[in-house]
Amino acid sequence: MQPANTKQLAAERAVTYIQDGMIVGLGTGSTAAYAIKQIGARVAEENLQITAIATSQRSEDLARELNIPIVSFEDIDKIDLTIDGADEVDEQLNLIKGGGGALLREKVVATNSRELIIIVDETKLVKRLGKFPLPVEVVPFALAVVKRQLEQLGCTASLRMQNNEPYVTDNGNYILDCSFGEIQLPAQLHDAIKAITGVVDNGLFIQLAKTVISAYNDGSIQLFTNDKRSV
Amino acid sequence: MQPANTKQLAAERAVTYIQDGMIVGLGTGSTAAYAIKQIGARVAEENLQITAIATSQRSEDLARELNIPIVSFEDIDKIDLTIDGADEVDEQLNLIKGGGGALLREKVVATNSRELIIIVDETKLVKRLGKFPLPVEVVPFALAVVKRQLEQLGCTASLRMQNNEPYVTDNGNYILDCSFGEIQLPAQLHDAIKAITGVVDNGLFIQLAKTVISAYNDGSIQLFTNDKRSV
Repeated sequence: MQPANTKQLAAERAVTYIQDGMIVGLGTGSTAAYAIKQIGARVAEENLQITAIATSQRSEDLARELNIPIVSFEDIDKIDLTIDGADEVDEQLNLIKGGGGALLREKVVATNSRELIIIVDETKLVKRLGKFPLPVEVVPFALAVVKRQLEQLGCTASLRMQNNEPYVTDNGNYILDCSFGEIQLPAQLHDAIKAITGVVDNGLFIQLAKTVISAYNDGSIQLFTNDKRSV
Repeated sequence: MQPANTKQLAAERAVTYIQDGMIVGLGTGSTAAYAIKQIGARVAEENLQITAIATSQRSEDLARELNIPIVSFEDIDKIDLTIDGADEVDEQLNLIKGGGGALLREKVVATNSRELIIIVDETKLVKRLGKFPLPVEVVPFALAVVKRQLEQLGCTASLRMQNNEPYVTDNGNYILDCSFGEIQLPAQLHDAIKAITGVVDNGLFIQLAKTVISAYNDGSIQLFTNDKRSV
């Protein structure tokens, strides 16, 4: 027997939450891509009537291939439901996101959604955040001073590279991947980083996820809601 | 008798604070340009030994013309003294800056300076900030949602234009000029705006200026220090 495709399982469960008439936020990354494919299947097979807004160009491209109607922020007020992945999820459903480099757009979509469903496999569930380096999006000219101030908060910050050049986000900024180790107070750390002049945003998503759907290798699925997740 | 050039008077006084060996932050705008010219004169005539860091490309260009040695953030730790203008100064020496479009770089320099001296003419001194629209630097794709959230804080926000196109900052972002009217609680407003996802920074400079030098039409000069300014 093949091991279960846990990402796909979690994604398919999340997509059952989508109803006719919704404005849906589409996440970025390999798990979110499964959700987009499943939404495309429901549009094709059930004639599901939705419009969607994407957190990255590649998610938007995938959605268009699948005939999912795409809108922009100019066209809408609130997003009804967003489905996205995460790099880490803690027991309070706080998240680290941004490993894929789209953290700002993901956060804008998440903060403007009535409901955020996060889909993960069990490897992403942690007691405390911080094993995964925290991505921080930084205005390029301020890189040196922001790096120094981030490291004063207790991390080692390394500039994300791609093909021997600094990785550049969709917004023209750099990413510093900050290894803090175990983060004791994620909400406070979020605010301290956001307060640094030259930081655009960071990958801590504090109390934004309403539901987390986690799939396991044995094919089972577990739902966590707000602060009621028990491990 | 000609009326005094108040901007030049304030600028020249500020430049007397510069000493050999300092790393000096150079502001942006018409008043700051007088300061840069006066620094250039001291470099040429007194052989003043300093290095400088500029808050904009045009200030850097002016400094280079005047043979002021320029460094970047990669080369330095702290800036000793920054001299810059402001659009408004209140009685606690809080500022609105960014009318010239360089607010983020001005703020990075200011927050990394041991001392910030602000030079103005008397027209910039106000009891409360807010007559001058507050510039907010915004990531372009988030413009519509950020505008909505800013207006929920009680302003009318208008996109800054240039030649019938949105004005683009040195960092590739847009500026929303936010007319709040009289701002009662500038520190709180600063934090509320900074917390909006998609905002890069805003033109409120809270408790950053150590000294304000104001020049008057009669040729007199007044110094205000920290919270000791009395009008």
